[in-house]
Amino acid sequence: MTRRGYYAAADWGTSSFRLWIIGEDGSVLAERRSGEGMTTAAKAGFHAILDAHLAAVEAPTHLPIVICGMAGARQGWKEAGYLETPARLAAIPGQAIAVPNVDRDIRILPGLAQRDKRQPDVMRGEETQLLGAADGLGGGRHLVCMPGTHSKWVRLSGETVEGFSTFMTGELFDVISHHTILSHAMGEPDAVAADSPAFADAVAQAREKPELATNLLFSVRAGQLLNSLSAADARARLSGMLIGLEIAGAITTAGSVEGICLVASGRLGALYRSALESLGFAPRYVDADDAVRRGLSAAARLIWPL
Amino acid sequence: MTRRGYYAAADWGTSSFRLWIIGEDGSVLAERRSGEGMTTAAKAGFHAILDAHLAAVEAPTHLPIVICGMAGARQGWKEAGYLETPARLAAIPGQAIAVPNVDRDIRILPGLAQRDKRQPDVMRGEETQLLGAADGLGGGRHLVCMPGTHSKWVRLSGETVEGFSTFMTGELFDVISHHTILSHAMGEPDAVAADSPAFADAVAQAREKPELATNLLFSVRAGQLLNSLSAADARARLSGMLIGLEIAGAITTAGSVEGICLVASGRLGALYRSALESLGFAPRYVDADDAVRRGLSAAARLIWPL
Repeated sequence: MTRRGYYAAADWGTSSFRLWIIGEDGSVLAERRSGEGMTTAAKAGFHAILDAHLAAVEAPTHLPIVICGMAGARQGWKEAGYLETPARLAAIPGQAIAVPNVDRDIRILPGLAQRDKRQPDVMRGEETQLLGAADGLGGGRHLVCMPGTHSKWVRLSGETVEGFSTFMTGELFDVISHHTILSHAMGEPDAVAADSPAFADAVAQAREKPELATNLLFSVRAGQLLNSLSAADARARLSGMLIGLEIAGAITTAGSVEGICLVASGRLGALYRSALESLGFAPRYVDADDAVRRGLSAAARLIWPL
Repeated sequence: MTRRGYYAAADWGTSSFRLWIIGEDGSVLAERRSGEGMTTAAKAGFHAILDAHLAAVEAPTHLPIVICGMAGARQGWKEAGYLETPARLAAIPGQAIAVPNVDRDIRILPGLAQRDKRQPDVMRGEETQLLGAADGLGGGRHLVCMPGTHSKWVRLSGETVEGFSTFMTGELFDVISHHTILSHAMGEPDAVAADSPAFADAVAQAREKPELATNLLFSVRAGQLLNSLSAADARARLSGMLIGLEIAGAITTAGSVEGICLVASGRLGALYRSALESLGFAPRYVDADDAVRRGLSAAARLIWPL
C-alpha cells in the first residue's frame, strides 16, 4: 500500500464479506471480497478472517476499522444493539460499539429496530446503505427499496427512518424453488431475465390479486403439467409473483411519498427495476455497493474526525 | 375374511396408502393404512405393495379394486388422465382406466384438470372425496375446502365442479418452518393449537392484508428477536398466516355460495374449522376419510354393478 490509509470499512453480511481501505482524500486504496460472511466467521473466527484480509492488502497495523451488518448480531462478533425507529440516520455512528481486547480500533455500527407489537422488524447493514443513499434524495418523504434475501422497504422522511418492512422474498424464492413440488418445474438454477414477459405478467397478477399468492405459486406446477410451461418461464413466474407481492405490500403501507428509490445492484437490481417500471413506477436507482461504502465512510469520518 | 368381499377400494396419495375391503352390504370388512404412498411405491413397485396388503387381509384372489389419487399420475402406476372442468362428478367412474397385465380387475380413477391459461389447476384424489361428499350438500352452489399439503377449494354447482383453486399452504408451512430463518423461532415441530389466540390473530391479519404476506412471515422472526415470541406462538402465527391467506384468496374467487363445506379430518380439520369460524363463517364439516371411502364406493358400484 503506497498511500497512507485513513480507515478500513467492512460490510459483513450473513454470507458475504467486503472490505475497503480508504485514504484521507476518500479514495479507495484497496478492496477485498469473499464469501466469509457471519455464517462462516462464526466458526472460523471473525478476528482471524479480518486479519487475513487486512494482511493481504498490507494495511497499517493500527488502521481503525468500521463495520456494518451481521457482525453486530447477537450470534455475530460483538452485539451492536439497535437504534429504535423513528431513527435519525446521523445518530447511527454515535451508537457504534467497540470490539474489546483487540489490537486496533474496531467499531461495529448498530442496526435498526421497529419495536411495534403488531409489526416488529429489524435490519442490520441496510441502515448503513441508507446513511450513504439518503443525502442524495433531498428532503421530503421517500420510499426506499433494498432488495435481497430479506428485502427492506424503508419509509424515509428527510434523514429520519419513520418505519420499515421486511419481506422474505429472496429466501422464499430459494426454498420454494429447491424444496417444494415446484422444483420439478424449475430446471437449472439459471438467472431470471428481467425483460421476460412471464416475469412481468406474474408481477402484475400478484399485485392485482395478492390474496391468491399461494394459489399462483401452484399454478406454476399446474402450468407445467397442462400447458408445458418452460423451466425459464416457471422461474420467471415464481420470481415475478414474489416480487409483485412484495411491491403490493410495500406500496399499501407507504402513504404519500415523493418517489421510490431503489438501492440495489446486479441482476436483482435489474429485476426490481423492471418490476417497478412494469407497474408504472419510475424508481431512482442507487448502486448498493456505492451506498454502503458511502455510509461506512460517513460513519468513519464522524467517529475519527481528521 | 369370513364374509364375502364385493370390491376393494384404495386411496393412494403421494405419501399415504389406505385400503378398504367392502362387502356387498357396503360394510367395511377390513382396512389397511400405511405410509407407502406414490413416493415409496414408485421405487418398491405398486403391484407388490398392493398385493402385500391384500394378502394381509386374505382378500379373495379375484376381488376387483378401485383406486383414486396419485397412483394415476404420470409418475404413478398407470396414468389415468383428467376430466376437464366444468366436470360432472358422476362422469368420473366412467373415465377410470384399467391397469393392464395384472391378475385382477384394477381401475384407477382420473383426476380433474382446469385447462385455463390464466389459472391452470389439477387435482388427484380430491375429486373422489367430492364424489363422496357432494350428495350430502343438496343443490345450489357450494364452496368446498379440502385442506392439505396442497389445499383445494372447489366451486361446486349441484354435482358439477365449475372450477377450483389449489393453495400450497401445507407444503409452504413445512418448508418455511424447516428451511428458512424462521426455523430458529419454531422450536420443536409440535402441533399448532386450534384455539391459540396467536393463530386466530394471524388468520385475521393475513385475511385483512394479504399483500403483506411475506412481511408477516418475517415478523415471526422479528417478534422472536424483539418481543420474545414463544416457539408455540411462532408456529401458530406461521400456520395462521398461511391459512388466513388461503381463505382470503378462496373467498374472493368464490362468488355467491349457499355455504362452505369443510372436508377434512384430525388436527388440520380442527385448525381450518377454527380459522373459518374466527372469520365469521359457519362451515359444514364432512370427515375426509368417510368422504373418500363413499366416493370410491360410488365409483365401484357404477363400474361393477351387483
